[in-house]
Amino acid sequence: MSDESLVAPSRVEEAVVFPAALGESDDLGPVVGVVMGSDSDWPVMRAAAVALREFGVPIEVEVVSAHRTPDKMISYGREAAARGLRVIVAGAGGAAHLPGMLASVTTLPVIGVPVPLSTLDGLDSLLSIVQMPGGVPVATVSIGGAKNAGLLAVRILAAGDPTLTGKLEAYMQTLAQQVEQKNAALQAGLDSTEGL
Amino acid sequence: MSDESLVAPSRVEEAVVFPAALGESDDLGPVVGVVMGSDSDWPVMRAAAVALREFGVPIEVEVVSAHRTPDKMISYGREAAARGLRVIVAGAGGAAHLPGMLASVTTLPVIGVPVPLSTLDGLDSLLSIVQMPGGVPVATVSIGGAKNAGLLAVRILAAGDPTLTGKLEAYMQTLAQQVEQKNAALQAGLDSTEGL
Amino acid sequence: MSDESLVAPSRVEEAVVFPAALGESDDLGPVVGVVMGSDSDWPVMRAAAVALREFGVPIEVEVVSAHRTPDKMISYGREAAARGLRVIVAGAGGAAHLPGMLASVTTLPVIGVPVPLSTLDGLDSLLSIVQMPGGVPVATVSIGGAKNAGLLAVRILAAGDPTLTGKLEAYMQTLAQQVEQKNAALQAGLDSTEGL
Amino acid sequence: MSDESLVAPSRVEEAVVFPAALGESDDLGPVVGVVMGSDSDWPVMRAAAVALREFGVPIEVEVVSAHRTPDKMISYGREAAARGLRVIVAGAGGAAHLPGMLASVTTLPVIGVPVPLSTLDGLDSLLSIVQMPGGVPVATVSIGGAKNAGLLAVRILAAGDPTLTGKLEAYMQTLAQQVEQKNAALQAGLDSTEGL
Amino acid sequence: MSDESLVAPSRVEEAVVFPAALGESDDLGPVVGVVMGSDSDWPVMRAAAVALREFGVPIEVEVVSAHRTPDKMISYGREAAARGLRVIVAGAGGAAHLPGMLASVTTLPVIGVPVPLSTLDGLDSLLSIVQMPGGVPVATVSIGGAKNAGLLAVRILAAGDPTLTGKLEAYMQTLAQQVEQKNAALQAGLDSTEGL
Amino acid sequence: MSDESLVAPSRVEEAVVFPAALGESDDLGPVVGVVMGSDSDWPVMRAAAVALREFGVPIEVEVVSAHRTPDKMISYGREAAARGLRVIVAGAGGAAHLPGMLASVTTLPVIGVPVPLSTLDGLDSLLSIVQMPGGVPVATVSIGGAKNAGLLAVRILAAGDPTLTGKLEAYMQTLAQQVEQKNAALQAGLDSTEGL
Amino acid sequence: MSDESLVAPSRVEEAVVFPAALGESDDLGPVVGVVMGSDSDWPVMRAAAVALREFGVPIEVEVVSAHRTPDKMISYGREAAARGLRVIVAGAGGAAHLPGMLASVTTLPVIGVPVPLSTLDGLDSLLSIVQMPGGVPVATVSIGGAKNAGLLAVRILAAGDPTLTGKLEAYMQTLAQQVEQKNAALQAGLDSTEGL
Amino acid sequence: MSDESLVAPSRVEEAVVFPAALGESDDLGPVVGVVMGSDSDWPVMRAAAVALREFGVPIEVEVVSAHRTPDKMISYGREAAARGLRVIVAGAGGAAHLPGMLASVTTLPVIGVPVPLSTLDGLDSLLSIVQMPGGVPVATVSIGGAKNAGLLAVRILAAGDPTLTGKLEAYMQTLAQQVEQKNAALQAGLDSTEGL
Repeated sequence: MSDESLVAPSRVEEAVVFPAALGESDDLGPVVGVVMGSDSDWPVMRAAAVALREFGVPIEVEVVSAHRTPDKMISYGREAAARGLRVIVAGAGGAAHLPGMLASVTTLPVIGVPVPLSTLDGLDSLLSIVQMPGGVPVATVSIGGAKNAGLLAVRILAAGDPTLTGKLEAYMQTLAQQVEQKNAALQAGLDSTEGL
Repeated sequence: MSDESLVAPSRVEEAVVFPAALGESDDLGPVVGVVMGSDSDWPVMRAAAVALREFGVPIEVEVVSAHRTPDKMISYGREAAARGLRVIVAGAGGAAHLPGMLASVTTLPVIGVPVPLSTLDGLDSLLSIVQMPGGVPVATVSIGGAKNAGLLAVRILAAGDPTLTGKLEAYMQTLAQQVEQKNAALQAGLDSTEGL
Repeated sequence: MSDESLVAPSRVEEAVVFPAALGESDDLGPVVGVVMGSDSDWPVMRAAAVALREFGVPIEVEVVSAHRTPDKMISYGREAAARGLRVIVAGAGGAAHLPGMLASVTTLPVIGVPVPLSTLDGLDSLLSIVQMPGGVPVATVSIGGAKNAGLLAVRILAAGDPTLTGKLEAYMQTLAQQVEQKNAALQAGLDSTEGL
Repeated sequence: MSDESLVAPSRVEEAVVFPAALGESDDLGPVVGVVMGSDSDWPVMRAAAVALREFGVPIEVEVVSAHRTPDKMISYGREAAARGLRVIVAGAGGAAHLPGMLASVTTLPVIGVPVPLSTLDGLDSLLSIVQMPGGVPVATVSIGGAKNAGLLAVRILAAGDPTLTGKLEAYMQTLAQQVEQKNAALQAGLDSTEGL
Repeated sequence: MSDESLVAPSRVEEAVVFPAALGESDDLGPVVGVVMGSDSDWPVMRAAAVALREFGVPIEVEVVSAHRTPDKMISYGREAAARGLRVIVAGAGGAAHLPGMLASVTTLPVIGVPVPLSTLDGLDSLLSIVQMPGGVPVATVSIGGAKNAGLLAVRILAAGDPTLTGKLEAYMQTLAQQVEQKNAALQAGLDSTEGL
Repeated sequence: MSDESLVAPSRVEEAVVFPAALGESDDLGPVVGVVMGSDSDWPVMRAAAVALREFGVPIEVEVVSAHRTPDKMISYGREAAARGLRVIVAGAGGAAHLPGMLASVTTLPVIGVPVPLSTLDGLDSLLSIVQMPGGVPVATVSIGGAKNAGLLAVRILAAGDPTLTGKLEAYMQTLAQQVEQKNAALQAGLDSTEGL
Repeated sequence: MSDESLVAPSRVEEAVVFPAALGESDDLGPVVGVVMGSDSDWPVMRAAAVALREFGVPIEVEVVSAHRTPDKMISYGREAAARGLRVIVAGAGGAAHLPGMLASVTTLPVIGVPVPLSTLDGLDSLLSIVQMPGGVPVATVSIGGAKNAGLLAVRILAAGDPTLTGKLEAYMQTLAQQVEQKNAALQAGLDSTEGL
Repeated sequence: MSDESLVAPSRVEEAVVFPAALGESDDLGPVVGVVMGSDSDWPVMRAAAVALREFGVPIEVEVVSAHRTPDKMISYGREAAARGLRVIVAGAGGAAHLPGMLASVTTLPVIGVPVPLSTLDGLDSLLSIVQMPGGVPVATVSIGGAKNAGLLAVRILAAGDPTLTGKLEAYMQTLAQQVEQKNAALQAGLDSTEGL
């Protein structure tokens, strides 16, 4: 699952509705919490923050460890809704308990990102996050799929929000245009002497 | 991942806020679409519908096959938001393409349920649903986890809806109470001659 | 990994040192807590309780769910040592968070039992329990290996306890004798007309 | 599954029947479409194009994404037969939906190439492509096996085409000769002082 | 991957173009060989024969074992094209060598069906068939996917055959209609008192 | 990997060279030891004994547990060659240590049979047996493949033994004949009204 | 499962209770044996020794191979308790038999560390260690999780040892503080221009 | 499974019984054939040849492809015994058919070496080789375990050969001595300032 950086960020940021800096809309306070079990997860999880920022969604970022800071983790989940958060994006690897434990202490939707570690390619992370028991769901995305976690949070927030929905529609059109641009570049390459 | 029927449905239905019959709130029209690739997925997917009904969420149920009715599938996804849906819950098995394809033609959040088939225990279904490419997220729940898919849809809808949030809080308290009841029953059994 | 009932329980119970009833030594209070995420785990986890009882170890049994009773789970782990427990045996299935979360709130050794659920044969349970991050260990036994979890707790308690160590030595001799008895029975069968 | 470049391309191209440049036979128009979900799949998929070109099969190459350009994907599949295509070779990775979705909107044989991404070694791609439901087959080749996808397309086209069949027979003889050449080189090395 | 019997066989057979009995077109001789490594594979492989018969394709069925009858297997593959076969459908389980070995001695397209045995759910069969080295492709279908193997053979034969193409188009429409019928039945059930 | 009982045992036993009863050649003493970690492995391992008996190879059968009778296991391996054994066939399940440990205390070839237990389908048994470190090989057969373990022992013994080699050649011809008989039965069934 | 070096070793060693050099408490003789099947396992297993040293636990380190030095291995396990050891930490890779075989010849708790080798990412090592039969438990930690093996040994030793328990409590507080420090660093980075 | 070069080859070669050059005993002609499906397997398979040479076993080395040279492969297996071979060592990767196909056309013991390719870490190779059907055994060693394949061939040849048995005993003693040497080196390092 390739999770390359968001397409054409410069074009997107030209559009007025996408604030250029994190927190531009912070008068509202953050509405999505992007949390992770270790700062070593940040290179993966950063893509969630970037995606949310590009859609102008106020976010906060925290290192919250289920295993090393269980009290903070419980508090974070318990107080999230009251603090104004509407979605939590949580990444963790290995025996990844953070997304599921947060989901057990909040009624907010929790999105889990399986972070791949040095062995097993993230299969352990995926199963530890997605195989939650009945009653406590976690919305799981692909291994390393932090960008999609951010986009899923946007989709959740966009329900009933015409502005955000419009941005999502524009984003999806951009995805299609990019495929066409890449296709055109590939065709051009095929016509060249080195094409094949 | 055990996905037993919702706990104590009778107790829940006594509470006024939980309509006893599907569609009680249907003046609003359905807000969640529960779709599946084959009617053979219904025994698994039914739990999503039950969970949503118990929370009083108006739903619709459809068989929509990515592979056998691709046009209907595209139309279903494209028109979902305009028809008033706010979340789609989609179940499929094997090379499960339905959730991902729906997500590619709507901006609504799509929840994917990996349905286990006769071989591989649903691992193929899980990977086919969760490993989506960057740009098009699917909120994946556990293998066979239709109940959690329904509950995740409720969580998404509950953001900003005090009534539904209240129901979720009550539901989570009920989960805790059930554990205590089961624990009490286990303790009683241990004291008996046949306990161990 | 077959986890059949303890060998020759009747012979063992004849030995005076093995109390016949759970709690015979309860003046001391329980020293091992056998906990599980759901009462549906009891048919698997019971073997841990049986093994501990046969070695005369005072135990307690509780249903404690990481996801449905997170507060109770935190309290259980935090207070375990002060209440006199010296080992916790915790079983869970699927995205099994109970053993790891208990380990994060106690300094006692925590033994994790991966309980197999209806799909994936317990591989998800195993990985969710064993793949703990550095700093918070869980002593993991085989899928469904509750008897071994009990025996491992006995080994831990036996360090520096000549009586318990003696019982373990006797138990291991019994294991060897049973193999010889089974071998003799097999040989007898081979000599019969239906042997092969 | 190693998928090295076609053996002895220079020798093959000397043979008149193998056009030196893509499209040499394009008066006929392309008969095989080589498509992929992303231009990042091209380094893998290129081998399919090379193989087809070496057999003189007119081809076209396109980036067609099931998830980012669903309309184009549907159109591509629907119009393929009418445009003269007789086989589609489709590569994709992760939750790889392109081959299966194309197969659902055409009656042409569709060959699927599982492209390995950064995790899981292509096992997710393989299962997402090969585990199609009854009614809509995809002819799946090995992980990264684009060359074989091209050769399979040639085999399909060769049925009833003596010229193409002859080329295939020559190709298979070449494969055998190459093994013998490699064996001879290995033997020569063994006789040298550094052989073992 | 469920591989239920072909939908509505009675309706299909009413259509004149679908011969009611195997071999109706046998003046032409068989054009597809359905082979398997053991007669114990027949319960799985039968679906390929049924699918081909329903499309009026003359077939032959043979037990050919790569490991127990290697000479027959080599001869079968070598002579297949000359005997008029245009496609071979080969099923095998475990270390499944039959499809790949046949592909090594014929230029015809070979379709491989991974047959699941008593352990591993057919994953060994799948990998043994699909992971062929460069140069010798096998068109692999899903685990147990014999019906799709038959349908893939029909797709291959239909290229350039308007009659067979027409039947495939009709078949795909039937698939869509069946989904609609099943959906209608589901809707009817939902309206009943026992629906949910 | 189906491991059905040896084909046509009655026919084989008619042949004079195959002694009808175990130990017919026991003047020589056993030359193959068939051992297993638990008598619960006997239903699987019995096929090894049957195969060896049908080839007239004197055998012994023992329950020897690496984990419960480590001393006996070490002694068994150490003394095997001196007692006249020439091959050891060892079956075990789960964390299967018996074959590898025997191989570490003998220079005889050791054949390992992965016995499938109640979870994981024998994949753990297979990896625990086959993945031996450099220096100490175990000849591993398929999961549950005890018959093949017996036949492999026969192949090893047959090297330089014309009589045993002759029996193996006859056996392989019988395998081929059986395939033809099964094929004939299948053809007969196809011609009947219920064939397809 | 990331297993980075113990946090803040310098700070820890300033605390008087943590001896600065291995063996500082060696008047007591070693109480934990850290053993491994090959010296090539040392880069992984070293973390166990480091963790134990930081807690002031006297240890010994040995290369003991189940397959290459079976006698030494048996002796090591048999004599461990008498020599004063209270816990054995054993690492091995592939068909990893060392932990289980040691557990079969001692009543001490044995902690197994699955060492990942060049293929399979340690999954074979994990299953070979954790899937022990009933009667002989091994306390298994994560793949490559030697640090946690050391910490688990400390937890076992700390039962009833207020000093060691105090160190464990301090260590767990340190873990929490480190998370907060890392979080602060991450927040600082986010505020900078390069944060996202 | 690490498969490092044979220990202390220089010391071994000093011993007269180990011929220094391949073929020293070639008056006898080769008794083991080391074959592989592709010369790209040689870097893995070379270790089998080296091991056999160090034991003075006359060998031959050949590239024989099941898929590219099926006739040669059949001939090679059929004629092997008559040419004086007593064991065949066969390595292959992916859908690895060579060992199993050779076993189907010879009564000699065939040892299979799963060669890991660029994806799946050799799991496909392992399953394709080890999961043979009943009747045709392949003695499978670890993934990449060519050295063990050579040593297994030596064990097979050594049965009834006191000289070769003696060499094997010496080799196993050498393995033990090496462990002790490595242990001594490790101990020395631990005593140094940089030990831990």
